[in-house]
Amino acid sequence: MGPHPAVAAIRLAVRRVLHDILNDHQPSDIAAQGSHERPPAPLVLVACSGGADSMALASALAFEAPRLGLRAGGVTVDHGLQPGSDERADEVVLRLRGLGLDPVEATAVTVGREGGPEAAARDARYAALDAAAERHAATAILLGHTRDDQAETVLLGLARGSGIRSLSGMAAVSGTGGRYRRPFLQLDRQTARKACMVQSLPVWDDPHNADPAYTRSRLRHEGLPALEKALGKGVVEALARTAQLSRDDADALDAWAGQAEAAVRDATGLLECAKLYALPPAVRRRVLRRAAIEAGAPAGSLFARHIEEVDRLITGWRGQGGINLPGKVVAQRQGGRLVIRQG
Amino acid sequence: MGPHPAVAAIRLAVRRVLHDILNDHQPSDIAAQGSHERPPAPLVLVACSGGADSMALASALAFEAPRLGLRAGGVTVDHGLQPGSDERADEVVLRLRGLGLDPVEATAVTVGREGGPEAAARDARYAALDAAAERHAATAILLGHTRDDQAETVLLGLARGSGIRSLSGMAAVSGTGGRYRRPFLQLDRQTARKACMVQSLPVWDDPHNADPAYTRSRLRHEGLPALEKALGKGVVEALARTAQLSRDDADALDAWAGQAEAAVRDATGLLECAKLYALPPAVRRRVLRRAAIEAGAPAGSLFARHIEEVDRLITGWRGQGGINLPGKVVAQRQGGRLVIRQG
Repeated sequence: MGPHPAVAAIRLAVRRVLHDILNDHQPSDIAAQGSHERPPAPLVLVACSGGADSMALASALAFEAPRLGLRAGGVTVDHGLQPGSDERADEVVLRLRGLGLDPVEATAVTVGREGGPEAAARDARYAALDAAAERHAATAILLGHTRDDQAETVLLGLARGSGIRSLSGMAAVSGTGGRYRRPFLQLDRQTARKACMVQSLPVWDDPHNADPAYTRSRLRHEGLPALEKALGKGVVEALARTAQLSRDDADALDAWAGQAEAAVRDATGLLECAKLYALPPAVRRRVLRRAAIEAGAPAGSLFARHIEEVDRLITGWRGQGGINLPGKVVAQRQGGRLVIRQG
Repeated sequence: MGPHPAVAAIRLAVRRVLHDILNDHQPSDIAAQGSHERPPAPLVLVACSGGADSMALASALAFEAPRLGLRAGGVTVDHGLQPGSDERADEVVLRLRGLGLDPVEATAVTVGREGGPEAAARDARYAALDAAAERHAATAILLGHTRDDQAETVLLGLARGSGIRSLSGMAAVSGTGGRYRRPFLQLDRQTARKACMVQSLPVWDDPHNADPAYTRSRLRHEGLPALEKALGKGVVEALARTAQLSRDDADALDAWAGQAEAAVRDATGLLECAKLYALPPAVRRRVLRRAAIEAGAPAGSLFARHIEEVDRLITGWRGQGGINLPGKVVAQRQGGRLVIRQG
């Protein structure tokens, strides 16, 4: 008798990603060694909060890695946001060791305030994971985000109304050198939870996940269920598929804008309005956004409405003055050229 | 004292669209007359159900059209789906005449079953509106869809998970020769309702709009409010903006795919796999979709998963057999070429 279907599903998802990691990394790792000795087996870490998703991921990594000649380790981040979080981190370390992972460590971070509580915690977490990867010379770090997390991320992006890049959710591969991998991005949360249950893995439910003070929590417990009730059970899958399609579309349009940007500049490097006008609006707006960022406008503060105003210098020219952009950048039209520079 | 802000808002929205219509149509209309006599003023019709959105639209059209030298008329479609719908249509005709619109007519349709009750009613309605436009030689037909309708349409598209084209909602300009115009696409439903109230216009609430048997109705009364509760009040606006951005992006990518399709065909017109492989995934999938439709696959039955399977003949070639597509179309790889034809 094989494993429970849920356990088979999480293992298959992890096995696929480990295969990808081996394909992407082993040849260059060996070359980088510059020696004829056999290099140590590549190390794959799992980032584990102790919750069901990442515990399921840890269990599948512990099972699959040795079969593919990989080492499996784990790291848990203590965000220090609740009393006793250090003890819980120690407990997660023990559980990960109990699965046979090695090395395993807890790493404590200080969460700032920038960008709100969720963004600050995320920034601190990824900095700690990056540091852990460097410290252990890990080839990859697996993250336990599920299809449900992806659906929530798409809806959060939708609420920004800033276009298809923000609909593209989380990438299956991201970070420096493709360090972060998300094997469960097409797996539902219920399967991860079930896999923990049938493997008798204790899991820890983060109280933040149920706290209605957090947007994501409200979305998870109220918004998404209501949407499913109205639109049917396929919504989560549809949102996850939208993420993938939007990501590919955004990548293609970014590539186009990159080429177009070079083509619309004159000999002195200024943007020619007539050439900008001839571009499709979607490409032109991306070129304008790139140019504003190059001129010093901070990407995070540059909204669609800013770019629309700059675009009107091209498509609705009636002699209007310069447009002020974040980062003290000014865009103005001068003699058939669009000049974007810090003022 | 000027009009109530809600009335000012609906009039401004209509005035802008009437200006666009005049810019787009008048010169060619005059040329088409081929005479030195002054042509009759262009006619703009409003499609009116008697509900608040389209009654507000009718009132604004009645006010603005004469000021711009346009004639204003109205048409109401009797879908024959409820007892007494014919009497209601007659009532709407009287109300539209009461606003000073001329010509005004009710037109009865027979709603089929194809594509479900909502799609069948929509198809019948647009066929009747097209016929009315032809009959009266109307320059344009105004439709009362609001920003809230647009937000619902984006969510319905999202639930299909079929990519950014289905996120692009309703166009501000659509139909043969840009016949249909939606002046209220950036106006919220509440403003239209308020404008009717302050003008003492009686409105009729379609019981379908509150019937939970309809997906759109569930979305309106449960899904969207829950999403707003989770994500904040800006959701409707964000969804509407997403529609516009997605539409522009989808148009640009379609244009790219159109050019790419010609470039990846060999001298005999077959698709070259190596050239397809070199395209960005987003463009390649659109080329494959176009090719499948050209070969006879019905667009409405061709889903993302079909195209993904065909795509694997290019990106994951391991000698697999032909892929069956809707409309008895088969895609297969033969000697470096992708052959898509009806089998």
